Amino acid sequence: MQNQIFELQYALDTFYFLMCGALVMWMAAGFTMLEAGLVRSKNTVEILTKNIALFATACTMYMICGYAIMYDGNLFLSGIAGGEALVADALAASAENGFGGDSVYSAASDFFFQVVFVATCMSIVSGAVAERMKLWAFLLFAVVMTGVIYPVEGSWTWGGKDVFGLFNLGDLGFSDFAGSGIVHMAGAAAALAGVLLLGARKGKYGPNGEIRAIPGANLPLAALGTLILWMGWFGFNGGSVLKLGDIASANSVAMVFLNTNAAAAGGAIGALLVARLIFGKADLTMLLNGALAGLVAITAEPSTPSALQATLFGLIAGVIVVLSILALDKIKIDDPVGAISVHGVIGLFGLLIVPITNPAASFVGQIAGAATIFIWVFVASLIVWSIIKVVMGLRISEEDEYEGGDIAECGMEAYPEFVR
Amino acid sequence: MQNQIFELQYALDTFYFLMCGALVMWMAAGFTMLEAGLVRSKNTVEILTKNIALFATACTMYMICGYAIMYDGNLFLSGIAGGEALVADALAASAENGFGGDSVYSAASDFFFQVVFVATCMSIVSGAVAERMKLWAFLLFAVVMTGVIYPVEGSWTWGGKDVFGLFNLGDLGFSDFAGSGIVHMAGAAAALAGVLLLGARKGKYGPNGEIRAIPGANLPLAALGTLILWMGWFGFNGGSVLKLGDIASANSVAMVFLNTNAAAAGGAIGALLVARLIFGKADLTMLLNGALAGLVAITAEPSTPSALQATLFGLIAGVIVVLSILALDKIKIDDPVGAISVHGVIGLFGLLIVPITNPAASFVGQIAGAATIFIWVFVASLIVWSIIKVVMGLRISEEDEYEGGDIAECGMEAYPEFVR
Amino acid sequence: MQNQIFELQYALDTFYFLMCGALVMWMAAGFTMLEAGLVRSKNTVEILTKNIALFATACTMYMICGYAIMYDGNLFLSGIAGGEALVADALAASAENGFGGDSVYSAASDFFFQVVFVATCMSIVSGAVAERMKLWAFLLFAVVMTGVIYPVEGSWTWGGKDVFGLFNLGDLGFSDFAGSGIVHMAGAAAALAGVLLLGARKGKYGPNGEIRAIPGANLPLAALGTLILWMGWFGFNGGSVLKLGDIASANSVAMVFLNTNAAAAGGAIGALLVARLIFGKADLTMLLNGALAGLVAITAEPSTPSALQATLFGLIAGVIVVLSILALDKIKIDDPVGAISVHGVIGLFGLLIVPITNPAASFVGQIAGAATIFIWVFVASLIVWSIIKVVMGLRISEEDEYEGGDIAECGMEAYPEFVR
Repeated sequence: MQNQIFELQYALDTFYFLMCGALVMWMAAGFTMLEAGLVRSKNTVEILTKNIALFATACTMYMICGYAIMYDGNLFLSGIAGGEALVADALAASAENGFGGDSVYSAASDFFFQVVFVATCMSIVSGAVAERMKLWAFLLFAVVMTGVIYPVEGSWTWGGKDVFGLFNLGDLGFSDFAGSGIVHMAGAAAALAGVLLLGARKGKYGPNGEIRAIPGANLPLAALGTLILWMGWFGFNGGSVLKLGDIASANSVAMVFLNTNAAAAGGAIGALLVARLIFGKADLTMLLNGALAGLVAITAEPSTPSALQATLFGLIAGVIVVLSILALDKIKIDDPVGAISVHGVIGLFGLLIVPITNPAASFVGQIAGAATIFIWVFVASLIVWSIIKVVMGLRISEEDEYEGGDIAECGMEAYPEFVR
Repeated sequence: MQNQIFELQYALDTFYFLMCGALVMWMAAGFTMLEAGLVRSKNTVEILTKNIALFATACTMYMICGYAIMYDGNLFLSGIAGGEALVADALAASAENGFGGDSVYSAASDFFFQVVFVATCMSIVSGAVAERMKLWAFLLFAVVMTGVIYPVEGSWTWGGKDVFGLFNLGDLGFSDFAGSGIVHMAGAAAALAGVLLLGARKGKYGPNGEIRAIPGANLPLAALGTLILWMGWFGFNGGSVLKLGDIASANSVAMVFLNTNAAAAGGAIGALLVARLIFGKADLTMLLNGALAGLVAITAEPSTPSALQATLFGLIAGVIVVLSILALDKIKIDDPVGAISVHGVIGLFGLLIVPITNPAASFVGQIAGAATIFIWVFVASLIVWSIIKVVMGLRISEEDEYEGGDIAECGMEAYPEFVR
Repeated sequence: MQNQIFELQYALDTFYFLMCGALVMWMAAGFTMLEAGLVRSKNTVEILTKNIALFATACTMYMICGYAIMYDGNLFLSGIAGGEALVADALAASAENGFGGDSVYSAASDFFFQVVFVATCMSIVSGAVAERMKLWAFLLFAVVMTGVIYPVEGSWTWGGKDVFGLFNLGDLGFSDFAGSGIVHMAGAAAALAGVLLLGARKGKYGPNGEIRAIPGANLPLAALGTLILWMGWFGFNGGSVLKLGDIASANSVAMVFLNTNAAAAGGAIGALLVARLIFGKADLTMLLNGALAGLVAITAEPSTPSALQATLFGLIAGVIVVLSILALDKIKIDDPVGAISVHGVIGLFGLLIVPITNPAASFVGQIAGAATIFIWVFVASLIVWSIIKVVMGLRISEEDEYEGGDIAECGMEAYPEFVR
């Protein structure tokens, strides 16, 4: 009978992982819609193509080598065998463990949950470089980012060991529950490196330094994308408890769902109010970025704050993100969807507030961890982007940028019947 | 070993609650897309902003005081402590109960599930007052509605006790499984009060009493919104069984899923056929409202009807909703998305058919409960709307209404590249 | 205590079925958005109406008779009683079975899961006949397809017995895990029969045999639809394990999720690369069809391949689907959304690769099963389409086709403010 109870717990934990993974996969649709709504219509097909292709690339590269690098300490390509041995590993592990021990669940469900995280990280890059980067240059970068750069920093944190035996950031008092830093700030660091090499969109900044708004073509899609991300984030954070099947774990998962929602709500309110103060209007795009900022901020530690604390953390993140978007525009870092502010600046903020509610983390550890992740991802990305720039170029031609990436890169229009 | 079984049941019931809650949260996207599709393009940003902001407001106000008023009998603001004590309460409760007793699950999951219901109630209001109400007036009302008005009527029913010790509608033979009355009709009552004070949109009714159709700008969004709501409703009704982890509960949850789907299908068919008879066309907007009417109708009792009964209840609701929308237009109650008919008229219909399949409910009890809820919400809302009208005004200026709420309230357009 | 463990397993398996069913229902939104994005704006309301109405029709007909024909061997209309007896049957069944035996779960959850499959099958037809078929002719066909044609072939396979006692395809070594053939190729066979009787859209093929591209009006909707289908497919394939609540079943479900995702990713990559080679562009619509092809291909056997095999199967499917779409256009079979290639050609491909990883299936059995299903569905559909053609006509008038089905059939426009 003890075996039967163990089997049930194994099945429940596996199912929980799979449902959370499906919700995180759904975030791919969220990023796709958000970005498709915030670019101009002439660049919409390209961004749709890019988002779906990057998801496919991430899933394939993480299977080929990324998962092995991140969790096994193995080198390039050995992951294929690891992929085939997943279920066997799980069965062996389960035979050795009893109820209430370490998380025990299907290794295939673990892979499925992890693989959608790397796709999330890559999606963040996509928005920041929109409307001027070559599609194939981007996808080439995606191969390296999802196959190597992300898995290496992941191995220093969630992997618990690293491929070169150099770091274990957890030993420094670094804690990042579901990836404010490991996923979101990492994506933003790669994006920043790309944006710096790429430059701003033509016409974004005037000859006398004026900043010109380039409105997105389809705001209902942007709102839909944000609500999809909000929903998917329950899986992103909720699944990161890694276990559900006992009272303590179930309570933790429930608190994570509650706090994830509360922080998003707080972020939306904070951004709405501060945008009202600054612009005199209820700015929808800032509201959306505020909700996302709340979500990113709580991701580093959604299990220990109270609901009130989570709301307040989100609220502050919503205020910061508006100021950050304005500041980045001032220094002419052109990020069409605000990804660097939402995922980078707020990812860092999320890491820094962890010690307020989680005594296992220290400010020093959070800063050391954040710096390590940022420097690794930024420098590695800068090198890869630079190589791609030399080999095939990063930016579409001026004429193609004027006509739009859709015809140049994809040979079709997103809304062929709706003339401007 | 008995403890382990209890822990598993606790975890399963908590997970079930969280998944259902995530589906109900997803309904926020459904309302947002439905309403964004059914208004004109010049009011689309405003309705997107309104829907996301009201969700954030509802989540925050319900945490601050709503949940405490509804379930603890506490007064304003004491809910904050309640929020912090949620998990502790759950653990204490679980220690006292055994398998098969009352529902035992994480209190945080209960809060998460309940909080998305109050947001649903508020979303209903949003559509009815669209295209002419001031955004900030609406959000001010949302604060009171989600913090006080809804929780008070909720305390008379699902709360089981009320804050002033006056009512327990259950004692009268009133039964409302998942909230045809408590959530949907209540939202419609608040909407009706607002619409009466607000008046119709400019140009909706001609000088000689003619009714002019104002078509929605983006019907694919409206269809998407309806399908999102259809999906989310599985969580809305399915989660309202409140327990999954034994055979009887699991069968009940399954029957609720089946009947919810059957009623939506019946509603779609009923509305499609009656619209074909009346208009000679397959009217998409009526089809969508028919599906939603089927869903609202079955919400008051989705567990006791057979699948055939559920389909028939939905079918009748689909017919009624078409007639109701036409009738409200005749008496010049301007409701751009049909929310008062779908959620109010059909919410009442849903309450009245409960005794057909559930002997625990009586017609007298259903009428008494419906009247109590309607009068409370309608009168309280009328007072709050009136105060807001005096203090800051409810309606945007005639010029802003002509130009559209988007520029006036939000400073941007939803589809800036698609000219009219 | 053994009873309690059984109750928990029953509840978990039921919940797993319901969640997977909700994901499959969500696929209805996927087909709706995909098709609405790929047709011209003048036919968008009609395709929205058609998709929601067919879902409602499928749910109702399958309740009335389809489920009974498929699983009980009963004839027309007896299913109503079956519907009412569902829960009672489940309780009786559960009393006789112990842990680890056959799948035991709420019969209502089984019906709910099965009913969304028949709707999926019908959705496939909808896209292929778009932009020229009469709405009511289509819905009449849907009544017969979902009430009889699909259930009969389902009874030969998943039903395990057939209504006339003639076939059990499983005895021939035929294996179709989640329905590459039973659902997808069957839908494509019905679509092909309709398309052959219906002819191509006006202007699709020029007088000198030239093929003219008719671009879809709203590609973000098509991308959204594809991502919805990708997500919903986790339920489609994952739920088809039919059991979750022990280690072996949970591992199988997890592997199915992983492989479903891997095959979709592979399909996207395959189609992207082959379209790049052929057209010189990153063709978004081919990318979308490639992802869907990967999903269809793995559906016949998602549990036995390794992740790498699943990716490769998907990749090949992605290549084939591009070639198939081009080939069908060459022979003037006009399929606006590529449904016959994605679901028919790749459905067959999916069946044929099963024996590579699953020794229980044989090539001969797969071919025999595929031929049986195709011939039955194609011939039966051809007869039904022909009768409808004689009685009321299949095709809208030339003038209505020029003006668009939306005004003619539904009396409204999808995007009334966005002029062409």
